Amino acid sequence: MGNRDTGLTPVTVLGLGLMGQALAGAFLRDGYPTTVWNRTAAKADGLVAEGAKLAGSVRDAVAGGRLVVICVSDYEAVRELLDPLEDVLDGRVLVNLTSGTSAQAREIGEWAARRGGGYLDGAIMAVPAGIGTADATIVYSGPRTDFDLHEPVLRSLAAGTDRATGTDGTAGAEAAGVGAAGTVYLGGDHGLSSLFEVAVLSLMWNILNGFLHGAALLETAGIKATAFASLAEQAIGTVAGWLPGYAQQIDDGAYPALDSTIDTHLGAMEHLVQESVSLGVNAEFPKLIKALTDRAVAGGRGGDGYAALIEQFRKPSEARP
Amino acid sequence: MGNRDTGLTPVTVLGLGLMGQALAGAFLRDGYPTTVWNRTAAKADGLVAEGAKLAGSVRDAVAGGRLVVICVSDYEAVRELLDPLEDVLDGRVLVNLTSGTSAQAREIGEWAARRGGGYLDGAIMAVPAGIGTADATIVYSGPRTDFDLHEPVLRSLAAGTDRATGTDGTAGAEAAGVGAAGTVYLGGDHGLSSLFEVAVLSLMWNILNGFLHGAALLETAGIKATAFASLAEQAIGTVAGWLPGYAQQIDDGAYPALDSTIDTHLGAMEHLVQESVSLGVNAEFPKLIKALTDRAVAGGRGGDGYAALIEQFRKPSEARP
Repeated sequence: MGNRDTGLTPVTVLGLGLMGQALAGAFLRDGYPTTVWNRTAAKADGLVAEGAKLAGSVRDAVAGGRLVVICVSDYEAVRELLDPLEDVLDGRVLVNLTSGTSAQAREIGEWAARRGGGYLDGAIMAVPAGIGTADATIVYSGPRTDFDLHEPVLRSLAAGTDRATGTDGTAGAEAAGVGAAGTVYLGGDHGLSSLFEVAVLSLMWNILNGFLHGAALLETAGIKATAFASLAEQAIGTVAGWLPGYAQQIDDGAYPALDSTIDTHLGAMEHLVQESVSLGVNAEFPKLIKALTDRAVAGGRGGDGYAALIEQFRKPSEARP
Repeated sequence: MGNRDTGLTPVTVLGLGLMGQALAGAFLRDGYPTTVWNRTAAKADGLVAEGAKLAGSVRDAVAGGRLVVICVSDYEAVRELLDPLEDVLDGRVLVNLTSGTSAQAREIGEWAARRGGGYLDGAIMAVPAGIGTADATIVYSGPRTDFDLHEPVLRSLAAGTDRATGTDGTAGAEAAGVGAAGTVYLGGDHGLSSLFEVAVLSLMWNILNGFLHGAALLETAGIKATAFASLAEQAIGTVAGWLPGYAQQIDDGAYPALDSTIDTHLGAMEHLVQESVSLGVNAEFPKLIKALTDRAVAGGRGGDGYAALIEQFRKPSEARP
């Protein structure tokens, strides 16, 4: 409010859920003149006490910032906020941190470009309490110029060191060092952030589900989940160490078996299915894991290494009988 | 052959596939008098050159060792080898490292007990090249006395330090420190090794599939698998760090949401399904992940943390329409 004279970029935050409040709070702590807006104005009370300016309308809020961060429930809500605002976009950069799909992000990117506004789509890989700390990773995609213009400001939100090297339009060798933490620029395609988000979330759910399934199996023999956790952590570390090698095979399109063949895996998958069925725990995941692998073997990949299963993941789902 | 006078326990290895050869080789390197047998005798040539004694029959092979390690293709092959041998078991300890199910392991344990033989079931979590090194983990289950009697010999196969604390019949607090590496004793129930093996393999397949699925998604936007690998490794490390906390919740039977609720996860799962379908990559895993979570929400767990999904994994598969 009173700090418009700092010379720092004025920022706006639209949407003050837990995450939006955390974002605005991080800007305020770093001294940025911060305008906020929320459908329910009372959610701004704490931020106003910290120095934020509460705008009376979305239009006033957007007019108050050069960088406009949007963090609402979904892309429909984003469109509802933005559609009436085309005349105030000029020169401003919108940064949409709302969770959605890559198609939705590209659509808004086109909308903003037609109206002369800059647009970055982003995905937050952090809980609200992590915002502003080195624990947060936020990935961005869209025009490099839009990112470069406001990168110092965006670093207030995710303070870890990054190794961002993605470049507009090229996602090959340069992108091989895509940043692992902090404020990360992915590339020019607005859809990249959403894709990275679901890719990482998918990996996360798979790990958690794998752990929960194992815990459910071992519980039948009286083993506690805490007992499984230590062995699981070691196994996870081992498997994580294989990924760069498997990734190289995928990029190369050749999958020599460095250790076990897919045929060998398949035999053990059958045990997993049998144990799950006979012990009365969920067998859907084991059956699907095995079914996908069966298809790879039917496709002649039995003698290859596990990374050859990428070919199955590239295909749309099989029709179920 | 010539080293029967070392005073070290004479050992026998039945089955000389790649893994069996690695096991016998590790015993030989540590100086144990080693008798070997394989259906195709020629596979013993290299081991005989290193000092192993090749037995002319399974009976002679078993008679040559006090500790008899079996590593063949499956449990049927194990039964075929062992059934005619009941009179030579007395006092010997069989260690079955063949991959199978917990029910099969328990069955052989009962068979051996009826014949006065010791029996440990084990599971190898290593590739053949890792046997005898600190990279190998081998877990054992069965009577503690059988394990204690031959533990020093078994350490030749998996040399890492362990923190084995499982005790016969109790798999509660004591087992909370179940070893994470090396030669690990799990407990008295012969089925534990097989269960641990499939639990860890299931976790491994889930991680690999999660990575492959993410790589297939990102590939549609021109991102290389090697570029995804670095972000994936970081995410895996983060998720691995959550497991002890989730495990404690599972053991406690209470799942307060420490960060995201299951409801929040479900919204993002819908994005994963949409991206997968619209980009033409596999959607079966995303749909199953979401379906399981839908059931948890329908069961009133939407406001809880992710660990509450253990309740879904504990149930047999839903009937599919």
